[in-house]
Parts: sequence; structure tokens; C-alpha cells
Amino acid sequence: MKLVIVGGVAGGASAAARARRLSENAQIVLFERGPDVSFANCGLPYYVGGEIVDRKKLLVTTPEMLRTRFNLDVRTQSSVESIDRAAKKVRVRDVATGREYEESYDKLILAPGAAPLRPPISGLDLPGIYTLRNLQDVDQIKQRVDQGIQRAVVVGAGFIGLELVENLVKRGVATTVVELQDQVLPPFDQEMTTPIVETLRGNGVTVLLGQSAARLETSADGLVVQLKAGERLTAQLVVLGVGVRPENKLAVDAGLETGPRGGIRVNEYLQTSDPDIYAVGDVIEVKDVVLGDPTQVPLAGPANRQGRIAADNVFGRKQKYRGTQGTAIVGVFDCTAAMTGASEKTLRRLNRAFRKIYVHPAHHAGYYPGAEGMVLKLLFDPSTGRILGAQAVGGAGVDKRIDVLAVAIQAGLTVYDLEEMELAYSPQYGSAKDPVNMAGFVAAGLLRNDHPQLDMDAILAIDPADRPFLLDVRSPQEFASGHLPGAVNIPVDNLRGRLAELPAGKPLAVYCQVGQRGYLATRILNQAGFDASNIGGGYKTYRLYQPDLG
Amino acid sequence: MKLVIVGGVAGGASAAARARRLSENAQIVLFERGPDVSFANCGLPYYVGGEIVDRKKLLVTTPEMLRTRFNLDVRTQSSVESIDRAAKKVRVRDVATGREYEESYDKLILAPGAAPLRPPISGLDLPGIYTLRNLQDVDQIKQRVDQGIQRAVVVGAGFIGLELVENLVKRGVATTVVELQDQVLPPFDQEMTTPIVETLRGNGVTVLLGQSAARLETSADGLVVQLKAGERLTAQLVVLGVGVRPENKLAVDAGLETGPRGGIRVNEYLQTSDPDIYAVGDVIEVKDVVLGDPTQVPLAGPANRQGRIAADNVFGRKQKYRGTQGTAIVGVFDCTAAMTGASEKTLRRLNRAFRKIYVHPAHHAGYYPGAEGMVLKLLFDPSTGRILGAQAVGGAGVDKRIDVLAVAIQAGLTVYDLEEMELAYSPQYGSAKDPVNMAGFVAAGLLRNDHPQLDMDAILAIDPADRPFLLDVRSPQEFASGHLPGAVNIPVDNLRGRLAELPAGKPLAVYCQVGQRGYLATRILNQAGFDASNIGGGYKTYRLYQPDLG
Repeated sequence: MKLVIVGGVAGGASAAARARRLSENAQIVLFERGPDVSFANCGLPYYVGGEIVDRKKLLVTTPEMLRTRFNLDVRTQSSVESIDRAAKKVRVRDVATGREYEESYDKLILAPGAAPLRPPISGLDLPGIYTLRNLQDVDQIKQRVDQGIQRAVVVGAGFIGLELVENLVKRGVATTVVELQDQVLPPFDQEMTTPIVETLRGNGVTVLLGQSAARLETSADGLVVQLKAGERLTAQLVVLGVGVRPENKLAVDAGLETGPRGGIRVNEYLQTSDPDIYAVGDVIEVKDVVLGDPTQVPLAGPANRQGRIAADNVFGRKQKYRGTQGTAIVGVFDCTAAMTGASEKTLRRLNRAFRKIYVHPAHHAGYYPGAEGMVLKLLFDPSTGRILGAQAVGGAGVDKRIDVLAVAIQAGLTVYDLEEMELAYSPQYGSAKDPVNMAGFVAAGLLRNDHPQLDMDAILAIDPADRPFLLDVRSPQEFASGHLPGAVNIPVDNLRGRLAELPAGKPLAVYCQVGQRGYLATRILNQAGFDASNIGGGYKTYRLYQPDLG
Repeated sequence: MKLVIVGGVAGGASAAARARRLSENAQIVLFERGPDVSFANCGLPYYVGGEIVDRKKLLVTTPEMLRTRFNLDVRTQSSVESIDRAAKKVRVRDVATGREYEESYDKLILAPGAAPLRPPISGLDLPGIYTLRNLQDVDQIKQRVDQGIQRAVVVGAGFIGLELVENLVKRGVATTVVELQDQVLPPFDQEMTTPIVETLRGNGVTVLLGQSAARLETSADGLVVQLKAGERLTAQLVVLGVGVRPENKLAVDAGLETGPRGGIRVNEYLQTSDPDIYAVGDVIEVKDVVLGDPTQVPLAGPANRQGRIAADNVFGRKQKYRGTQGTAIVGVFDCTAAMTGASEKTLRRLNRAFRKIYVHPAHHAGYYPGAEGMVLKLLFDPSTGRILGAQAVGGAGVDKRIDVLAVAIQAGLTVYDLEEMELAYSPQYGSAKDPVNMAGFVAAGLLRNDHPQLDMDAILAIDPADRPFLLDVRSPQEFASGHLPGAVNIPVDNLRGRLAELPAGKPLAVYCQVGQRGYLATRILNQAGFDASNIGGGYKTYRLYQPDLG
């Protein structure tokens, strides 16, 4: 068996190591266009920021290590230019010498990854303008920052963009982030990104949403980013992070099938349309495990697992890749945003039935010092209760809850299962009723309809004159510090004695701060004969949709 | 409907609040023997230590709050003395006045909790000797500590015992912990508690295992704890934390069925042998969801859920309690120990088939600063791969992995599912191959038998003369700093060239530091015709069984 692997980072390196474990006798050739294999992509922004000091830490492994330990034929600076499928050969160019040669294969694994998108902006090639994909990019960006620049512009507010923004700010660089969409972190639902925008602004970042760069120019100060809307941003460093596209040229030229967004089509064994060629990582189209549709998810975890599975299949093990559910996380200053499964916007776009709830719990028992808040959004099937997706934003413990919900989605669990989850509780770590349990209680209460709920965005979408009677059941102090327009305040603790103040025969929309007192109030009201619903997630959810910009 | 609830802490208070949400019209009477309802049991040690400063924080809710918000008839300092099941009445004694009276019920929920065990030791009633169950206990202990004592003895190294030890040390009290069993934290497997003992000793705690108190006496210095083995420990404070027993007297006197360990028998609806009487919390016997056997698990999370479910059933909702899986966590200084599902010792006691693996991963990517280590043990069914239990001990991130595995157990997932889990990865939060994935890879490799593994304890149980050939594939430096007796060192990176040094025809037991290089070495050896197995978890697992006491 002669296995040739194209690409030596996450998926390719995993495939190579796995292949060697499966076969001591196979000839395994690993081609990598760059000088490094298996480097820590996800750590690059933190090397710019100085959190990771030693550049060597970014090298997860080295070509020498792969040769010695795994007996691999590793060839870096070697660009695979074409595939001759009939002859089962690849054509390789030695980047340093320009020499070209052919290498035969029995099986081929493609793991070329994805390349940063270069938007159609003039001036992209001026000095001081970078993308961030590899160690060579990061070396240049870091060198600029080390030279003591004042201002930077990051174009694109995705995961890597925001990580870079944080690290530039930590280096003292005044940073502006420009995002075409009207939100940061486009995979998230917009309202869930409100705390991230507030965190960015609180740390001095200029966040420009719904804007895009039209042109890049040089100036006496370095560079100017000319926005379409007219504004001119001066900077000494511009980094583009507007997304990636699969590096599919090799596959397309070889006539392998690709999807509408360019990802190489693979079957569940990660085999391309040529059964002797497998493909893994950011270059492939995967199945969305929640929705069943093909999608593209450039993430390191799936790439590693795919590499392993492709090697298994090359050696006849018949392992299936179950698909990708899009679990992702990003830290932005002291805020964490994480998600798994489908977003509300995706469900709406695909016209799928769903319900949603919001809870705003603390990450551990409130009576123990240091509890940090989060907002947790849960999306679920209205008939079965199956969990479709989850998003959380906040401080400590966000990662844990999204991981728990990622497993729940993998296992096909429902909101009723969340009610019963037995998670580890001690006051430093959680609560007797964990945020995940709370989300389950609220969602299951909604589906059982003993807790009629209205969505905050649905209320806000109604013309104020047509809205239900808005009842705020918080304390007068809470009411005074901000409330929904037109709401009337009756604290829940007085509600039983003040029912006569409420309009008979009119629907009531009740809310409190997070939803819990509103829930009790709704129960009181409905049992007293009113037509009441609780606005899920309360005033804190209102503030996600209507940020307090004052 | 008139609902009477006996006990106002976790289970009782949850039941009462839920009952009111379900019915505005029901008469709900909550009896609590003590002066407080719903206090934060799990926070008590941290009030002693000063981590929780404000005593009011320990009051999760107050009788007034329950009256106002939930319209409950809350009667504290009210001890329910007996139940007249035929007449459906309870007899109540007002603790303050001694007045006795009867209260009728339609349905009764018992939530009296569990009482600290008082071991048969003479001198238990001397001043300065306490148990830790409620706010009155903690007030007395804290007062002692505030007075400036020098030495304390904690009898019992369970969860609360060790939390108290930590907090006493933080207050500057020289503390000794005495435990009858030969390990701390008895629910855990012994080898998994090695890091906890090392942490305790590293923080100056005297840990006496396999020892018990014979007698307590007064002395000029305060108290003396006379151990059975002869040693005499002086102290100004002694706290007993040797376990709890269900407060079942009321139930037993009323003729309700109880189990062999005294827990009230309930059906899946939490109904006792009298269909009008429900019971919840530490007083009941529950079903172990992994093993199916009845057990007793005094934990706050399950008590809360049971309270909710019992109230549902009282009001005709037919909710089942699925059982308890024993998820628990404890922090001891900078170390966390957590578990879920069955332990190895329980599986052995019940003679259940199982296999186990150990991994020693970091809690997040190693290239990002601050990665903390952990040991994660996984127990699983050898034929199906179903996960039976998990234990983890270490620094940050232990809670997250046990929560993930708790959900996996709840969902009936297998080790093969762990391989596929898609958890949130960014370098501050995890790894592209999360510790849970790693555990899945190792366990699945074991079951697929492409990775033959030996258990470290099985190796150590063999007479040294009869052991397999022990091959240490770590670096010479690692080997020099400690290795298994009789092991021969050939680093994995040299192994392919030095196969001739190995004995032909003899079984080889290979190990490295954590298992990963041993895995590769095992693959190399078996493909070269040797009969090799990897000792799972490597040298770090050896050190769990054979602590380095030097």
C-alpha cells in the first residue's frame, strides 16, 4: 500500500499518524506546501497578542518528529499541482527549487484546507495588508505590531477576526473591526452577539457593522481603509478575515465532484467521487447532523476526526463519519460565545419548525462568590422536543453548558431529558438546578403548555398599539431602571391582591427580569381566569434585542 | 387539595414551590423542624472558611419569601412527630412552645432529609465536638474557629469532611483528617484519590487512613481524639463527618416500607407504600440508573428534581423519576474530583463485567499557557461499549468532562460515541481532540482489539517473577526519573531499529508516560510479530497505584 496525503496540518497529519498505526509496512508520503506541518492554527492570534510567547509552541509537531516517530516520508515546501487519476499519480513541485516530479499512489487523501477569501477590494496587495492562515502570516503581523503601530483595522468579525482584535488591543493597538453583516460572529443569532459587541466596545474597540471596505490606499500614516459608506480609517495594519473558501483547485481540475460552495463531495466514508481518493478537513462538504443537509464547517476538531476516519477506510476498516454539528467557541476578552447545532436564522432560512427559549443563569451557585452570568438560548423541535441547537454567551461555564448540549444533540435527546440531567454540583462548579436543567424546565413547560410563552422578538415585531397588555412583575426599583415601552408594573409578590387592576378579556404578556417570576405570575393569572403568557427570558432578553446604548 | 410537606430544605422547598405553581387554590402547609428553610447546605464549609462572608447568602430563601411569593403556610420550628395514615393527619410539635396539634392532609410529601451518623465513640457529647448539617452547626463551628483555635480533627474524609478540612486550613487551623477506610472520598476508586491525598498533604493536612477514633476526651489543650491504633490527637475542635442516615423514624413508625439501609421505598412516581404519601430527597431509596439496583444517594440536585416530580404527581401529572446516577464533585484546594455512574469497586462488588481505561490529558490545548492536567478514568461494558461510569481528578476542566460523560451515561452512549463527540474547541477551552475524545479512542481501540491493553493493577498484582517483559518506551531521561521495577528502556523513536533486543516468544507489556507512545509501540511490535500489549495510562497510572512518597 502506498498512501499519499496532500496537506500536513490538522486532517492530513491526523490521517498520516493514524495510517502508520494501522500499518507498519505501508509507504506513506505526506506533501505539505508550506514549511510547517501540524501547526496550531487556532493559536495564531494569541502569538500576536503575546499570550503564547514561544513560537515553537505553535508547532504541534515537526517534520522530523513525524519522520522519526511515525516513519513517514514528509515532504514540506512541496506543492501538489495535479492529479492523474487514470495513472494514479500526482505531480509535485518543489517550491524551493522549482523541480517538478511525479509520485504514484494506491490511495490518496486530500487535506489541503481552506484559503482566506480575498474580497474584491482594490489595493489588497499593498504592504501592511494581511490574512491570517499560517505561521508566515503571523510572523509578518507580529513583526508589524512589534514595530509599534498605533492603529489597526480588522475586516471581518468572525471567530479569528475577533480573536485577533482582542490580541491587538492587548498590544495597545487602537483597533477597528469592520463587518459587512449587521452583527459580529455571523454563525450566531444576532441578538446573542449583543454582549460580545458590548464587550468589544467596553474594551475600546470600534465596531462598525453593516459596513464594508471599498478600497485600500497608502497614506502618510500608513494605510487608509476607505469604507463604502464614505468613512476613511487610517491604520498601519489591515488584516482581512472575511471567511475562507475550500482549496479545491486540485480536486476540481481532477474532475472530482464538488458542492455548490466548492467543497469536495465525499460519502460517509469520506471517499470522493473517485473511490481511490479520500478528502478531509476544511476542503470538504459535510453533512449537518441536525438538519441533514450538506454544509461546510471549517473546524479543527472535525478535521482531526475525519483524518483518522479516512485512514481507517484506506486500510479497509469501514468507519463512517457521522457529520458535523458545528460546535464552536470563541473567547473575546472576558466574554465567551459558544454554539452547537442549528441557529435560529438557519432554521428560519430552511423553514424548519422550531421553538426557542432563553435563560439567564449564573454559572455556579449564587451564594458562592464569583458567580458569572450567561445567556443560554435553546432551539428545539415543537412536536418532539428534540434539541436542534444551542447558543450561550457570558463568562465562566459557557463552554461546559455548550459541551453538555452538544452531547445532548449528538444523542438525539429532548428538552425533557434536560430536565432530568444529573450534572456535577458543588457551589464552585454549578447549581443544584444547573443552567441546562433550567433551560429544560422552561422549554418543557412551554411544550407542555402549562407555561404559555411568547417570544420577545415576536412581541417587538407587533405594532405597539396592537400589543397585548404588558405586565412587568418585577420590583418598582427594577421597573424604574428600565422597562418595555407601555408596560404596567405590579410586582409578583403583590399580584394576587391586585388582580382587579388588570383588564378583563384582554391578552396579557407578562415579563420579569429573566423569566422566572413571570412564570409564577403567568400561573397565578391563568388560574385566576386571565389569558396570560410569559415573555420568555424577560427584560434581559429584551436588552439583547434592544441594547442599552446610553 | 390540602398538601402537607414535612421538611423545608432542598426537596421539600422545591415541592412546595412547584405545588403552588400547579395550583393557586391548594392549601399547602410546609413544616420545618429548624428555624430556616431552603438553606445552602453545600455552602456551609465555605462559610467557616470565610469564602462566603455574609451569612444571609446561605439562606436561599426565607419563610417570609415563601409566604409572600408562593402563598405557602410555612411553619418553622415545627416538628412532625407522627403520621396517622388512617385518619390522614400528622401530629406536630411546636419546638418553641412544646404545644402539640394535629394537621390533616389529602396528600403528604416527606422530605426530612438525612442526619449525620454518630459513630459509637465515647465522649461524643463533650463541648467542641460537632457534626455539620445546618446553620446552627456551622454557627458553632465558625465561632470556635473565630476564637482562634490551633488544631482541629475531622473524622471522616468524605465530601463534606474534606471541604471542611480545606476551609479550616485556610483559617490557619492545623488539621488532621481521620478516615476509617484506606482512602479519602470513599465513593471514588482508591487509586483515583491519590492526587487528592497528595494535595491535602501538600497543604499541610495530616491524613490518617485506615484509622478510627476510639474515644474523645477533654484535656488541658481542649480535646483529645484517642485513635484505636493508639495515637492521641489534641485539638480544640472535632467535627464528625462519617456519613448520614435517612431520617426515617416518622416513616418507619407509620409503617411505610423502607429498604435495607433505611431509605423509604418509593415507586417511580416517588410514592411510598401508602399512595397518599410521597417521599423525596436524602430520606428515600432510589434506583441506580446504571446498575438498576436500589441505592441511597444524598445529593442536592436529585433532591430538587424529586421535589418537583412529587408535586407533579400529587397534582395528577404522572411524572416518573428516572433514578440517580450519582454525579458528584468536590473541590479540595486546587484539585477537583468528580465522578458519575458506577465505580470500579461497585462493579467488582456486584460482579458486573467491565473494562476500564485511564487517560492523562491537559484540560486545554497544550500550546496555550495555563493548561492543567487531569486523570480521567472510564468504565464501560466490554461487549457493547456502553459507558458505565467515569471519574476524573485534576485541575480546571474536570467538572466539564464529568458533566459531558454524565450526559453520555444518561443517553446510553458507548465509547464509540465518545470518539465522535464534537465539543467546543478553542485553545483556552479545550483541545481539537478533547480529553473525552481521547478516552473514547483508547476505550474503543481496546474493544476493537487493535490496541491490546493490560490494566496496571493487574500487572502489579502478578508476582514480579511471572510478569510479562516490561518495556518502557519513554525517553532515557523519563526512565531515569522513575520506572516500573524490572522494566527495560527502549524509546519508541528507536524501537523499529532495536527490535532484536526484545525477547522472542515472550509476552511484552509496553508502557510510556500516559499511554500514547505505548500505543504506537504496541502497534509497531505486534505488526513485527511480537505479542505486545500496552499498559493503559502508563507511568502516571502506575503512580496512582504506587504513590511516590519520597
